Amino acid sequence: MGEIGKKVLLTYGGGSIKKIGLYDKVKELLKGFEIVELPNIQPNPKYNPSVLEGVKLCKENNIEVILSVGGGSVLDCSKAIAAGAKYDGDPWDLISYKVKTQAALPIVDILTLAATGSEYDCAGVISRTETNDKIGYIDPHLFPVCSFLDPVYTFSVSKKQTAAGCADAMNHVMEQYFTEDTTLLNDGFCEAEFRSLMVNTRKALENPEDYTARAEMMLACTYGCNGILALGNSASGWPCHAIEHALSAYYDITHGEGLAIITPRWMKHILSEKTVARFAKYGVNVFGIDASLPPMEIANKAIEETYKFFESIGIPMHLREVGIDESRVDEMAHHIAVNEGLEKAYVPLFEADIKKIILESL
Amino acid sequence: MGEIGKKVLLTYGGGSIKKIGLYDKVKELLKGFEIVELPNIQPNPKYNPSVLEGVKLCKENNIEVILSVGGGSVLDCSKAIAAGAKYDGDPWDLISYKVKTQAALPIVDILTLAATGSEYDCAGVISRTETNDKIGYIDPHLFPVCSFLDPVYTFSVSKKQTAAGCADAMNHVMEQYFTEDTTLLNDGFCEAEFRSLMVNTRKALENPEDYTARAEMMLACTYGCNGILALGNSASGWPCHAIEHALSAYYDITHGEGLAIITPRWMKHILSEKTVARFAKYGVNVFGIDASLPPMEIANKAIEETYKFFESIGIPMHLREVGIDESRVDEMAHHIAVNEGLEKAYVPLFEADIKKIILESL
Repeated sequence: MGEIGKKVLLTYGGGSIKKIGLYDKVKELLKGFEIVELPNIQPNPKYNPSVLEGVKLCKENNIEVILSVGGGSVLDCSKAIAAGAKYDGDPWDLISYKVKTQAALPIVDILTLAATGSEYDCAGVISRTETNDKIGYIDPHLFPVCSFLDPVYTFSVSKKQTAAGCADAMNHVMEQYFTEDTTLLNDGFCEAEFRSLMVNTRKALENPEDYTARAEMMLACTYGCNGILALGNSASGWPCHAIEHALSAYYDITHGEGLAIITPRWMKHILSEKTVARFAKYGVNVFGIDASLPPMEIANKAIEETYKFFESIGIPMHLREVGIDESRVDEMAHHIAVNEGLEKAYVPLFEADIKKIILESL
Repeated sequence: MGEIGKKVLLTYGGGSIKKIGLYDKVKELLKGFEIVELPNIQPNPKYNPSVLEGVKLCKENNIEVILSVGGGSVLDCSKAIAAGAKYDGDPWDLISYKVKTQAALPIVDILTLAATGSEYDCAGVISRTETNDKIGYIDPHLFPVCSFLDPVYTFSVSKKQTAAGCADAMNHVMEQYFTEDTTLLNDGFCEAEFRSLMVNTRKALENPEDYTARAEMMLACTYGCNGILALGNSASGWPCHAIEHALSAYYDITHGEGLAIITPRWMKHILSEKTVARFAKYGVNVFGIDASLPPMEIANKAIEETYKFFESIGIPMHLREVGIDESRVDEMAHHIAVNEGLEKAYVPLFEADIKKIILESL
């Protein structure tokens, strides 16, 4: 890493990297480097204080490289800091696309959670609490220069976070699979992802130190958002992510859990004669449902299997269980309809559709 | 491309890029660049004259970047030239790994054939006629800095070359699929590759200007050798490539055709109680063979289907048809046994095994 820079901003979360000894190991390996630390980066990483603090530290200390040690939230936050550090104005200008990103500090990461795929993409999701915004900030400058993926560092991930990570990755694949103009190749890659994620998550939950299961989860998650799964496909609009981003911006819930809850309700909502073939393909190739059944029956079974899978890995499958009730549904549905462009999704969603999906998820 | 260099070595093959207007387009786009040309690069590109001439041109003209316009052979040759241009001694030192490659000129390519995957890997295969050597030269410095993949440039590829390109790519996937310690994810990716290559090659042969078929072929081929399909798998030894490299070093046959001929014979040779599960999986997931049949029956059917597929796309399925007879089989089998390390392959192959596979292929 010395070739990239000797002045390092070390970013991390709530301290799990200290528990597993990774913090000490990193400090040992970086002897001779000048290290400034930004700890306490939260899930659904916040613009204020984390991004703002990080940018300030970079500027004050002439930081040359950011070392992100943790999961996708730490890495996403580090990406926004990396760009903000190279920009004179308010970093929100970049995150909100008001100003085009022109540069970013190099980012190296050591991943401790299989979930977001941030280690292999150029995106970061940042929340701004005061405005209930949660924005997917995408720019080619945000690719990490190097990501270290050692499955051993995921052995200590809790059952809850293992399941949520799986749901996050499953949904990344769904957002690219449920669309039009897909290729045989991408469909096959996506179906392999689904099968691999389900089998290996079950194994990892059973035995958290199952190296091959953790390794394959890590590999499967890493393809989630790097574009390989959707090369040549039509854009799907990523509707579940759009809806979940509002839920977690308003309620700060666990991203993967929100996605798992929304997904089967969204599927039911968009299932129709027009989309049934896609759901039937999913049912046959992912869940092994008998291909000779009527397509609509296969499709409904597939949605049910999706729900049951998430339930089986311990995810709370109702929004009420994660603290969300009716009170702000109208407001959230409106926010999503206005900001997320879901009228251009695979199956267009308008405010009433979004509201219905959220209500069904309660 | 101006950022990479203004002094360009333009490499190409027998002139098909002139017929399709690509040569003129490139020259038009590169107005203001200093261009030196190396034409006539042959399939199974030759150390002498092509690599040697290219290196000489680079050194004499202080070339800064190589632009390879053509298929995998032109690109493979360009890679060896790129490294040779940055080395003071005989470029064969690098290709034969006598000296470690330390640098290479940047390479940009415009691909006109879906086959080798060279556009997305760091390898090139170079033949040296006088010693019957055909070596896969692999080094991280050999990755192209940018590859342009426009399916339209493959519309004019002949039926023979389209089929050979498919067989080459199919075999790349097989060399990674038939091994041990595979993951569910890689298996699924590989199976998607097989299905996609078969369906889309048939479509492209029927209608050479089928854009989506040509595009998907191009995409599927590009994953062939970049490692994604084998991440975490045990090494397989790439036995069919090892055997075919000798065949085409001795007889200069079309690489993809040689692979298609060898493959089913190699499969039959290694099918046993130990490998039957892998072949059965291949049969069920790639050819849709009834999973309830006995595994050995599925495996044999799958090998037969593989043979029939290659035959159906017009590949001559006997070595005699491409000009190879018994006369040098002993010599070739010995050369392969001594040089290719196939005693470490997925199923170890010794001289007698190799000889038998070649004889079965005659």
